[in-house]
Amino acid sequence: MPGTETLEQLARLIRYFILVSTTEAGSGHPSSSLSATELMTGLLFGGTFRFDPDQPLHPNNDRLIFSKGHASPLFYAIWAAAGAVAEQELMALRKFGSPLEGHPTVAFRYTEASTGSLGQGLSVGLGMALNAKYLDKLPCRTYVLLGDSEMAEGSVWEAMELAAYYKLGNLVGIIDVNRLGQRGETMYGHDLAVYEKKVSSFGWEPIIIDGHSLSSVLAAYEKALQIKDRPVMIIARTIKGKGVSFIEDKNGWHGKALKKEELSRALEELGPIDKKIRGQISRPLDLKPAAKAPQKIRAVSYTGDKSVATRHAYGSALTRIFPQFPDMVVLDGEVSNSTYSELFKTVHPDRFFEMYIAEQNMAGAALGLSIRGRIPFVSTFAAFMTRAFDQIRMSPYSNANIKFCGSHAGVSIGEDGSSQMGLEDIAMFRAVLDSTVLYPSDAVSTEKLVEEAARHRGLVYIRTTRKDTPIIYRNDEAFRIGGSKVLRSNKADAAAVVAAGITLHETLKAYEELKAQGILIRVIDLYSIKPIDTATLTEAADDTGTLVTVEDHFPEGGMGEAVLSALAGQGAPVHSLAVRKMPKSGKPDELLDYEEISKNAIIRKVKEIIGNRRR
Amino acid sequence: MPGTETLEQLARLIRYFILVSTTEAGSGHPSSSLSATELMTGLLFGGTFRFDPDQPLHPNNDRLIFSKGHASPLFYAIWAAAGAVAEQELMALRKFGSPLEGHPTVAFRYTEASTGSLGQGLSVGLGMALNAKYLDKLPCRTYVLLGDSEMAEGSVWEAMELAAYYKLGNLVGIIDVNRLGQRGETMYGHDLAVYEKKVSSFGWEPIIIDGHSLSSVLAAYEKALQIKDRPVMIIARTIKGKGVSFIEDKNGWHGKALKKEELSRALEELGPIDKKIRGQISRPLDLKPAAKAPQKIRAVSYTGDKSVATRHAYGSALTRIFPQFPDMVVLDGEVSNSTYSELFKTVHPDRFFEMYIAEQNMAGAALGLSIRGRIPFVSTFAAFMTRAFDQIRMSPYSNANIKFCGSHAGVSIGEDGSSQMGLEDIAMFRAVLDSTVLYPSDAVSTEKLVEEAARHRGLVYIRTTRKDTPIIYRNDEAFRIGGSKVLRSNKADAAAVVAAGITLHETLKAYEELKAQGILIRVIDLYSIKPIDTATLTEAADDTGTLVTVEDHFPEGGMGEAVLSALAGQGAPVHSLAVRKMPKSGKPDELLDYEEISKNAIIRKVKEIIGNRRR
Repeated sequence: MPGTETLEQLARLIRYFILVSTTEAGSGHPSSSLSATELMTGLLFGGTFRFDPDQPLHPNNDRLIFSKGHASPLFYAIWAAAGAVAEQELMALRKFGSPLEGHPTVAFRYTEASTGSLGQGLSVGLGMALNAKYLDKLPCRTYVLLGDSEMAEGSVWEAMELAAYYKLGNLVGIIDVNRLGQRGETMYGHDLAVYEKKVSSFGWEPIIIDGHSLSSVLAAYEKALQIKDRPVMIIARTIKGKGVSFIEDKNGWHGKALKKEELSRALEELGPIDKKIRGQISRPLDLKPAAKAPQKIRAVSYTGDKSVATRHAYGSALTRIFPQFPDMVVLDGEVSNSTYSELFKTVHPDRFFEMYIAEQNMAGAALGLSIRGRIPFVSTFAAFMTRAFDQIRMSPYSNANIKFCGSHAGVSIGEDGSSQMGLEDIAMFRAVLDSTVLYPSDAVSTEKLVEEAARHRGLVYIRTTRKDTPIIYRNDEAFRIGGSKVLRSNKADAAAVVAAGITLHETLKAYEELKAQGILIRVIDLYSIKPIDTATLTEAADDTGTLVTVEDHFPEGGMGEAVLSALAGQGAPVHSLAVRKMPKSGKPDELLDYEEISKNAIIRKVKEIIGNRRR
Repeated sequence: MPGTETLEQLARLIRYFILVSTTEAGSGHPSSSLSATELMTGLLFGGTFRFDPDQPLHPNNDRLIFSKGHASPLFYAIWAAAGAVAEQELMALRKFGSPLEGHPTVAFRYTEASTGSLGQGLSVGLGMALNAKYLDKLPCRTYVLLGDSEMAEGSVWEAMELAAYYKLGNLVGIIDVNRLGQRGETMYGHDLAVYEKKVSSFGWEPIIIDGHSLSSVLAAYEKALQIKDRPVMIIARTIKGKGVSFIEDKNGWHGKALKKEELSRALEELGPIDKKIRGQISRPLDLKPAAKAPQKIRAVSYTGDKSVATRHAYGSALTRIFPQFPDMVVLDGEVSNSTYSELFKTVHPDRFFEMYIAEQNMAGAALGLSIRGRIPFVSTFAAFMTRAFDQIRMSPYSNANIKFCGSHAGVSIGEDGSSQMGLEDIAMFRAVLDSTVLYPSDAVSTEKLVEEAARHRGLVYIRTTRKDTPIIYRNDEAFRIGGSKVLRSNKADAAAVVAAGITLHETLKAYEELKAQGILIRVIDLYSIKPIDTATLTEAADDTGTLVTVEDHFPEGGMGEAVLSALAGQGAPVHSLAVRKMPKSGKPDELLDYEEISKNAIIRKVKEIIGNRRR
């Protein structure tokens, strides 16, 4: 282990890197980086942290997450001080095309997870720590640097309570209590005792230190190593802007780079810098997790005369496909008996994590698990997925491979009423970069699409229905991401009705009634809403002249607009039936009628289209 | 004050109401209602709670919010026991058209806020308590009934920390610790000491009681009345299903009504019920807040040769219009120097509430303020609005009158990178029931639209831009919700380009370049994305044959799809330019080019359209 003198020199070098790179960039957060310089110098180069810079993906590396992502200049600087990044690379900070972005992203090879939306990093770290302790069973540890301002985010406390619940002795948080937020003092300023009480009451071991004393910093990490039965939070009193007297502890210096002349003064204050010195990071033991080989799985086998809720088929599918995808883990927000992820839990309790009613942390932890190579399936009511939108939107920036399943979609849930109805979940998940949105209508298609979701690398959303619905597909029917099914088709189709989930069954009923009256419609099961089967929709528009979309969802951003976008260049009229009135309690059929997305509404709309043509 | 014997009788009556109404409904949550029966009986009829059932809107009424909304059978039963609801009405529980929905909604006249998405009620209560203490300056108190499961939600702890910060001695929470969640035991079971530590560390006064002892319950409320300098949390040990021996403290009874024969057994256990007895609620003092008369405001006055960021104009507008809308309050999530709500704070510090980095609680508190008659303007970065999506989607179910302003929209923020870029905010706010979505492009239109937002009753989202942008409108130009502006128009327009915000300025530049090359385009400022100006868009489609939409937002659910929906029945081709590649750091202009939403991309697209026509 190096002496603190070497560490002091490294800290000076890191401060130098922070200051010159941000001044060169003309923007960035030097003051928030300077406050945590000793905390990170001590961690990386003090002997505690074990990481192989030549093998950043080594499974037994310790992990470091900058939850306070705006301290990215410090993050890049420590890797430069480790010799893993050239000073020249630092000078491209925040420039177009540089992997050194304004907030850390996975474009930079030492970034574990893209951060910058505050209060998310601890959940990601929790996912990684869960993986190390319960799945990989490796001794590596996860460190998360937090800002004091972001401790106001509820998601942090969700991660706190759950990390204690799972006794994650391999998780260490470090709060950089520099007193100042973006626009002024935080709620607690430098009152470390408040943090200590809060942290301790949530079941963590608090360690209070002076965050600029390297010997205290080293001692804290050493002490943290000894605590095995609970997570540790190092609460460090620091000075924002530390090392540059004219910005130290001063308001108004958040997110501001020094001007050239200010930089000169600051560097003078820093004193002589040894630009050649580099820190050594301890190497991890070369341990690897036991790997499981994928196994063949049994085929789907439903009997066609039974009705089965797609949410139930989701649970069955998880259990069925697990042998083929041994990296799967299942997370649920305390509703596993409603989402039916409990079917998986019963068979594979060691691969199921109860996340309680804390959806933000659930999504963040799923990201951590995904980054460590797992395939998390994450379920709650579709409505409550909205709770985690910030975490969900951030996850593609870390190349997440997460499968979300929202149950109880739409007004068809019935009596529980509006608060429990997912009516904006399709819009939300469609708006996420590179996402996939699937909405199966029966048990067979659900089973197949859950399997496709596991096979697909990326973020997938699967929407399921509360009610039992008839099985409409044969067990050997194939489904693919980006596909659709034309269920009824004739030369003389008056219109094409595009539906998915519960409304597909309404459409099939409408088909029968209309047929009895001599009116034929095309029926399309749009089970893949994103990506979308443009070819089939185009053909339907060309053949029938008019599309009708029917969805148990608000119109904005939903299936109807997905169809409109797919056909946007082509100019076919599309009529949208969707949830447009204040939703309420009632029987599912009453509500489908009330919102005009039922069999009756479809029949009315088709006849209206025919009537308008005749006029 | 009645003796506990009368209260015992009332509790029995309330249990009777809970059981018969849920069995009649065939669904609902009797077990979660029974556990809190004494807690609510003691509150309403024990003399502490002051409320006039004949004047539910009286400003000095105490407020009661069921954050555990699934205990709605209890909620309706207490009002029946107060004589304010007939037993016959209770029997319509959960039926279509009944105001007694599965979870409380404002269709029922004693519901303060629609609940059912757990962990939101305390924030709503906090908003009401802020209003009572700092704005109305009335002695009324706010009570929030919480479930133990929902204490896992981070948003609850956001409300906790902020209520303590604002020293809300008029806010009382009651945790119904019945040990069991939906699918099993909570994280802490009946370990009340953990709750006590956590609650106390967040600055609240904890009071531990046996939640089924009416004398303890009464003493707790009495004690709470004496504590003036901080909020109080009553932590009550209760039994789920209390009073019905065969469901008491048993797993598997969440959200299940008793069958007819089970009900008979349960009623036998309850013993004789006096169905005629009714409880008395103490009346509030007839106090009213000092009312302020609206005053005339000064006109907008910008000089056209200056560039001003729309976010800055937002802050200016708040300050300018306040005299006309004296019910305005401004909330910000610790970024008021970026959203520019600080311009208002400086002038009206007593009407500004710093909400710190806790967006969920900010949105929930805004709802509480709105319900109490205030007009909250709520700002943070557009990206971080996603944090509060669940609270936002719930708010129209309480007829919210909230104005959200998201700054730093899109990739045009530049160097800070993807985490800080609002790229899904239009999709999110469009998908909210009855919402209004506004996206001004210059300082004048921002000023006018902020004023329109204040005037409009309902949820409004205003999207602002980080960069300075030229002023393109005269100070006397009028703007309306649902309107648009045609800025360039000719008979020979080759296409119509629809833009808003930053892309409008790119479009105007494209217009000039194309014009120099002899190509004319129509330019439409679609500042009102929802509702949308269908007439102007239709005319543009008819006149030019093709629309191009350009937005600094992901394509799904954004402005482009809003335009598609507006024209859906009509079949005009619409081309969408939007953010489709992984966003990154860089200069704003580099990023607009990279994402193909810049002047250059518009020019290319227009020429491509013309080229295709010629072919």
